[in-house]
Amino acid sequence: MAENGIAPKARPIGVFDSGIGGLTVVSALRALLPNESIFYLGDTARVPYGGKSAATVQRYSLEIAAMLLAENAKTVVVACNTASALALATLEKTLPVTVTGVILPGARAAIAKTRTGHVGVIGTRATINSGAYERALRALNPDVSVTARACPLLVPLIEEGWLESPITDEIIMQYLSPLLTDGIDTLVLGCTHYPLLRNAITRLLGDKIALVDSAQNCALAVRDLLLQEDLNTPETNGGRLQVALTDPPDAFLRVAREALQLEVGEVQVRGVIASAL
Amino acid sequence: MAENGIAPKARPIGVFDSGIGGLTVVSALRALLPNESIFYLGDTARVPYGGKSAATVQRYSLEIAAMLLAENAKTVVVACNTASALALATLEKTLPVTVTGVILPGARAAIAKTRTGHVGVIGTRATINSGAYERALRALNPDVSVTARACPLLVPLIEEGWLESPITDEIIMQYLSPLLTDGIDTLVLGCTHYPLLRNAITRLLGDKIALVDSAQNCALAVRDLLLQEDLNTPETNGGRLQVALTDPPDAFLRVAREALQLEVGEVQVRGVIASAL
Repeated sequence: MAENGIAPKARPIGVFDSGIGGLTVVSALRALLPNESIFYLGDTARVPYGGKSAATVQRYSLEIAAMLLAENAKTVVVACNTASALALATLEKTLPVTVTGVILPGARAAIAKTRTGHVGVIGTRATINSGAYERALRALNPDVSVTARACPLLVPLIEEGWLESPITDEIIMQYLSPLLTDGIDTLVLGCTHYPLLRNAITRLLGDKIALVDSAQNCALAVRDLLLQEDLNTPETNGGRLQVALTDPPDAFLRVAREALQLEVGEVQVRGVIASAL
Repeated sequence: MAENGIAPKARPIGVFDSGIGGLTVVSALRALLPNESIFYLGDTARVPYGGKSAATVQRYSLEIAAMLLAENAKTVVVACNTASALALATLEKTLPVTVTGVILPGARAAIAKTRTGHVGVIGTRATINSGAYERALRALNPDVSVTARACPLLVPLIEEGWLESPITDEIIMQYLSPLLTDGIDTLVLGCTHYPLLRNAITRLLGDKIALVDSAQNCALAVRDLLLQEDLNTPETNGGRLQVALTDPPDAFLRVAREALQLEVGEVQVRGVIASAL
């Protein structure tokens, strides 16, 4: 038995993101681990993290993770590439539970998929500038070539709901053309929003470029971790999904919910509490 | 003499914005009031405000305004349409100095310019959803017709530096076509970023649509206010511009500085202090 008298296994998986995009990870987790309960917290009062400094992203991540611990999270999933790139080490050092980010699972999947050894990575400015994917990819295979590019317009396009639009196609191609010219054969979608553009990207790049979805690979890593740590829920009747945001939901929640076919239910709004960690 | 022994007239004008966009107001103020010192504070740690709730924008605005008062601001300029739309009344009620927003000056200029009485307004989601421009325009002229549209992609496009790009042109036309069809003859650029797209918008709309630049009109309102309140600086050798941000500056500061030809000097980074107001 653990804190608050709840057996660790029965406690929820805590998932956080700077906003709504991390629901792509929740969607993958629900499909893979339907009996696990999930508490999702989106920091919509301070979204996006992708253009902000490492120090600020670390502080925000610690504050949001503390709120997940207050919800009895048995493990914390950083469903945000920017926070994974800039704050994972800080979170691992500080939190009393295991932490899973999206970078390492994505890098592993990319190394497994690439044939030519040339991997492309797209993400926010902060994720790309951090070099976190390059480091993870090179740690797994020192011979890999990496072409990385920040694509700061893709998140706003997704949040505008322009998932299938000629303008979105043009912007995707403007961002990706140099990567194709460079000869990548695998592309890491290094932002949890980007799976919502998977159809458009697949249509534009064709089947010669393998896509690595950080959401899906993160969910697989969480499944493995729960097995290793013997933290799987004993529940067999389906887990509960709770969604909380630090600012009331806007139109993008509807976009995400529909695109992901996710049953979100009532969304709670929580003020950020300064981290006591 | 006033607090801290500094004569009120010699104190700086405090200007704030959610980020860097408010530098368009600073640029207009520098041209109009070259002897006034300005302390500019951009809340880049929490930018943008444009998709956030009224309660959150009000809280952030009070916190940032308190930081300007700590810098001895003799008056506060809200160089952000979203904060002006959602937090001006709260700021006016709370602050011990005068407050100037961008909405009323912009609305006044639009009413003066329109011939057909049909005014268009573009801005962030929060600004447009607030209805603040409609209210201000109708209070000035109950017969005015208003067509308002949120354009959430324009700020990210500007911050990406795509000020002159066929993609930007397409997005502008996608947003503005319904306003043109509706028959507007005057368009309020209801976001302090938008003057950076003035060239592109003018090129696309031609000279039949009058543009109202909220930055320029806000600066004129500040000049009038200082005259009325006898708060003009006695300085005659040029005022000082200090720029502080709540998160370290990124690439967009360079874009803005170049586009506005603004001499910004060294940028300070300040942590947000919770408002004691």
